[in-house]
Amino acid sequence: MFRHELAQQLRVDSIRASSAAGSGHPTSSMSAADLMAVLLDGHLRLDFDRPEDPRNDHLVFSKGHASPLLYACFKAAGAIDDAELMTFRRFGSRLEGHPTPLLPWVDVATGSLGQGLPVGVGLALTGKRLDRLPYRVWVLCGDSEMTEGSIWEAFEHAAHEGLDNLIVIVDVNRLGQTGETMHGWDLSSYARRARACGWRSIEIDGHDLEQIDAALRDAANPTGMPTVVLARTKKGKGVKEVEDLPDKHGKPLADPDGAIEELGGVRNLSVRVAGPEWEGRRHEFPAPGGALPRYRIGEEVATRKAYGEVLSALGSRQPDVVALDGEVSNSTFSALFRESHPERYFEMYIAEQQMVAAAVGMQARHWRPFASTFAAFMTRAYDFIRMAAVSRANLCLMGSHAGVAIGEDGPSQMGLEDLAALRAVHGSIVLYPSDANQVARLLPQLAEADGICYLRTSRGANPVIHSPDESFEIGGSKVVRDGSDVTLVGAGITLHEALRAADLLAEEGWQARVIDLYSVKPVDTVTLADAAANTGGIVTAEDHWPEGGLGDAVLDALAATGSLVPVRKLAVSVLPGSGKPAELLQQAGIDAHAIAKAARQLLHGS
Amino acid sequence: MFRHELAQQLRVDSIRASSAAGSGHPTSSMSAADLMAVLLDGHLRLDFDRPEDPRNDHLVFSKGHASPLLYACFKAAGAIDDAELMTFRRFGSRLEGHPTPLLPWVDVATGSLGQGLPVGVGLALTGKRLDRLPYRVWVLCGDSEMTEGSIWEAFEHAAHEGLDNLIVIVDVNRLGQTGETMHGWDLSSYARRARACGWRSIEIDGHDLEQIDAALRDAANPTGMPTVVLARTKKGKGVKEVEDLPDKHGKPLADPDGAIEELGGVRNLSVRVAGPEWEGRRHEFPAPGGALPRYRIGEEVATRKAYGEVLSALGSRQPDVVALDGEVSNSTFSALFRESHPERYFEMYIAEQQMVAAAVGMQARHWRPFASTFAAFMTRAYDFIRMAAVSRANLCLMGSHAGVAIGEDGPSQMGLEDLAALRAVHGSIVLYPSDANQVARLLPQLAEADGICYLRTSRGANPVIHSPDESFEIGGSKVVRDGSDVTLVGAGITLHEALRAADLLAEEGWQARVIDLYSVKPVDTVTLADAAANTGGIVTAEDHWPEGGLGDAVLDALAATGSLVPVRKLAVSVLPGSGKPAELLQQAGIDAHAIAKAARQLLHGS
Repeated sequence: MFRHELAQQLRVDSIRASSAAGSGHPTSSMSAADLMAVLLDGHLRLDFDRPEDPRNDHLVFSKGHASPLLYACFKAAGAIDDAELMTFRRFGSRLEGHPTPLLPWVDVATGSLGQGLPVGVGLALTGKRLDRLPYRVWVLCGDSEMTEGSIWEAFEHAAHEGLDNLIVIVDVNRLGQTGETMHGWDLSSYARRARACGWRSIEIDGHDLEQIDAALRDAANPTGMPTVVLARTKKGKGVKEVEDLPDKHGKPLADPDGAIEELGGVRNLSVRVAGPEWEGRRHEFPAPGGALPRYRIGEEVATRKAYGEVLSALGSRQPDVVALDGEVSNSTFSALFRESHPERYFEMYIAEQQMVAAAVGMQARHWRPFASTFAAFMTRAYDFIRMAAVSRANLCLMGSHAGVAIGEDGPSQMGLEDLAALRAVHGSIVLYPSDANQVARLLPQLAEADGICYLRTSRGANPVIHSPDESFEIGGSKVVRDGSDVTLVGAGITLHEALRAADLLAEEGWQARVIDLYSVKPVDTVTLADAAANTGGIVTAEDHWPEGGLGDAVLDALAATGSLVPVRKLAVSVLPGSGKPAELLQQAGIDAHAIAKAARQLLHGS
Repeated sequence: MFRHELAQQLRVDSIRASSAAGSGHPTSSMSAADLMAVLLDGHLRLDFDRPEDPRNDHLVFSKGHASPLLYACFKAAGAIDDAELMTFRRFGSRLEGHPTPLLPWVDVATGSLGQGLPVGVGLALTGKRLDRLPYRVWVLCGDSEMTEGSIWEAFEHAAHEGLDNLIVIVDVNRLGQTGETMHGWDLSSYARRARACGWRSIEIDGHDLEQIDAALRDAANPTGMPTVVLARTKKGKGVKEVEDLPDKHGKPLADPDGAIEELGGVRNLSVRVAGPEWEGRRHEFPAPGGALPRYRIGEEVATRKAYGEVLSALGSRQPDVVALDGEVSNSTFSALFRESHPERYFEMYIAEQQMVAAAVGMQARHWRPFASTFAAFMTRAYDFIRMAAVSRANLCLMGSHAGVAIGEDGPSQMGLEDLAALRAVHGSIVLYPSDANQVARLLPQLAEADGICYLRTSRGANPVIHSPDESFEIGGSKVVRDGSDVTLVGAGITLHEALRAADLLAEEGWQARVIDLYSVKPVDTVTLADAAANTGGIVTAEDHWPEGGLGDAVLDALAATGSLVPVRKLAVSVLPGSGKPAELLQQAGIDAHAIAKAARQLLHGS
């Protein structure tokens, strides 16, 4: 009876909050109210007073639009009060339209469907293999989001890793935003898929409190398999105006007072959610220390290889560093980390969305994930990266095989939009080192930095040009050659081309300043403004599409500092095919000759 | 025996091409050679002399890295000669490292794994519901790519749509790039998943020519369900140096001559691939015509609503226009198209990758797809959009609910990186109209334009400011208010804010020029250069992150035209929460007051 009353309160509060806000998703909340009432009262082990307790269970609302229900749960658990609940969706309230970690009981932001479950896999993986604590991860999914491929990546991985600490509750209310879902109330269709992937599935009536209780008790009983509880529910359950009716998605009820009355009125029940009942501490990996690699000037090293070597060394110094890869670890050289630190390496197979989601889950538990794949394939996880920023996640992504310089593999494998995509992530850091010593200096800083960090690396080997004793900072740049006639700005492969261009220009008597703009975001406005003030013009060159990359970062810095100087932006402007790296750099118009030519045009004022 | 000889030739030619190129994936080709030999000889119905014949079957190599095998098949079929085969991966050759539609028998580019099958679903859907022709779509998948979520989106959709014209052959060679796949040779694990989704599955030894023949014959026999043939194979089959061995991925053989000898030497067999044996023409939908909507100046209309109204009207005039949506058609207003043209509307549920892939498949058969979802969720399909450009696809994406102006739903639902992401797609067109009449003028042009077109729309209603008689072109802009003191550049919601800012400045005696930069790419450099030359400075304002959007497009245009003028770029620089649109525009620093303030700073030279 208490649970029924509690569930009704969760419904009433979902309605009240949405009505106060004038928007929100009360009906999507009402379908899952019974499920959450039982979870709170008897199954969840979460000390709301100590959200940072490492022993706590985790609760992820993958159906983030059911935020009124989540916040109603927080009120029932005494975590927030009723007055705060009524600030839902107001400017400045931490009760946003979709949950974010501004609330200490929320691990990650949700609201882009199909993401909460893969992040939950990351949390459960952390519990099993990193924290090594027996907390459970509870994920509430909607049935509409089950069509996202990322959900199946999560199903595959959870089973493969034997995550029996993961319990997914699917609120099968049958109705999506616009109509019936693909599978309606056919619980067996979901069950077949889940079992085919190696999950245990339990089908219940999601409004039968005893069935829910039994299912959650079973689910929490580890069997070596993850568990999905498939709950048949009704959207808007409990209120005739909306129950199981179409076109009632995502809006307040027309008659909230009537609905509240129908549900038995406003209640102010408190549920005492149990805290963790066992002792335990987060596992610590040994970190014997050791030096970071140093590279001799002139040595030919691919920056992707330096990534693997430096990351491996960093793992020996810093026990919280972990690595993930999308089945290309022999190309990204994260394989070196796997060899040194097998317990802290995670093979995510070819599932970039799940890879980034797992990293987000790990960082929520204060690990420092480095996730790598080809730069081109980071685009596969772009929605997850975007949402990771909303989650205030701290993690590092490494994209290898940047640009046309990869050569023969062709455009499908060439990261040519990664700088634009990663710059356009809130608060991100975007680095593109030109040699191995820069990688060695910058990577440890990324392991301490806030936000989404992106490191772009090259496939081919290039000579080391910076001394191992030089320091490089996030947000910095380096004038690698001084000159006052013209400035050449490059990073990665184009820095090497710019140096060759400076040689060509020197033969003609021109002194070119060459800037290694390894930090594309934040960008070194001071050095760029100085180049604008003290040289006759700036040429930028990048192995990237013309839009949103290094050249745009330079133009932005110049505009911000009021620097009025001619700029020629060189970038890849034709769709490349296969070929040798040099052929493709020439075709793209970003090799030394193209840079020198653009500089000459500036010098001659044409 | 012929088939065995043909398969050996395909292996030998894969080795020869990769060795000539010095790179490539011979072992991934050799595992599937028997499968393809039998497909070519007796099952595929494709007239290689008439690749545009609408009756042809389609063959998609989802495992695009097996390009040597595909090209070897083309040689065997007489489509290319041996000399061309030997140009594999050379600069200028159309035989790129991964297949592209530069080859007339290739519908779409592959090479980003997990994409060929969803595109195949689009082709099969086109055969069933648009072309209404009985061609079959054959897709060759690798087993490694089965972990991509997009594969499961494809499995779900194909079954849901009853695509029995789709036959997927999975080359289960067990070995990925770095090691064993998640499921190794456990064919039953794939079969369980496929059957759970409603597919027919057939398990075979992929090197047994009779089993292959029987399976392909069965598969081509329609049963209302799509079919997957799960073929157990060995990577590098036929050559001891590489067969079923790890670390043999993606490189030429060490001893190609020995391998060729082991395979029986070079052959020059021809296979006569059958053409389509039936008559039939592509279905044509009626298009009775009718006027496009016209909106009264001052009328309050959301551009997303105009999208739905204009698209629906366009569908009545142009029979090749089709629409897809990711289960938000009542928000994007593509529901209006569905109501008018139900046979040309495709509900893709919440599966944005499959949505874009289906659009790519449809345009390969010369339909004009318009695919819509929230701008924020276009990020989910970014890898597919990137690859669509490599496919030289012509299609239109519509992203609604752009920016902080959506209000209460919060950052997960706000498209704030879409302009950057879509600008950084090769050859793309990016439009962001400010009113409904602009939508009415521009949408028909997008239905004729080449490349990836993106239309960004707003959630909220804004007054119509342009006459229905005005014309707007892709690549254009409009000076909506003249002035010579300062220029204000906006698009969409910020154009309206810029107009209000101009009013504020006018009260202070300043005449601001206001430019509606509705075409963000290509951008109107002439009008911007004129503003730079004839006003004291430029303020740009955009409801987007600062990187890669409208402001960067303006800076790029100014740099390209050598226009040296102070520019203040306003964009969303804080992570927004929930709130009223006006509150969030103010917080972001992109409302009328912020624009006016920036203009004043320029005018006062501060």
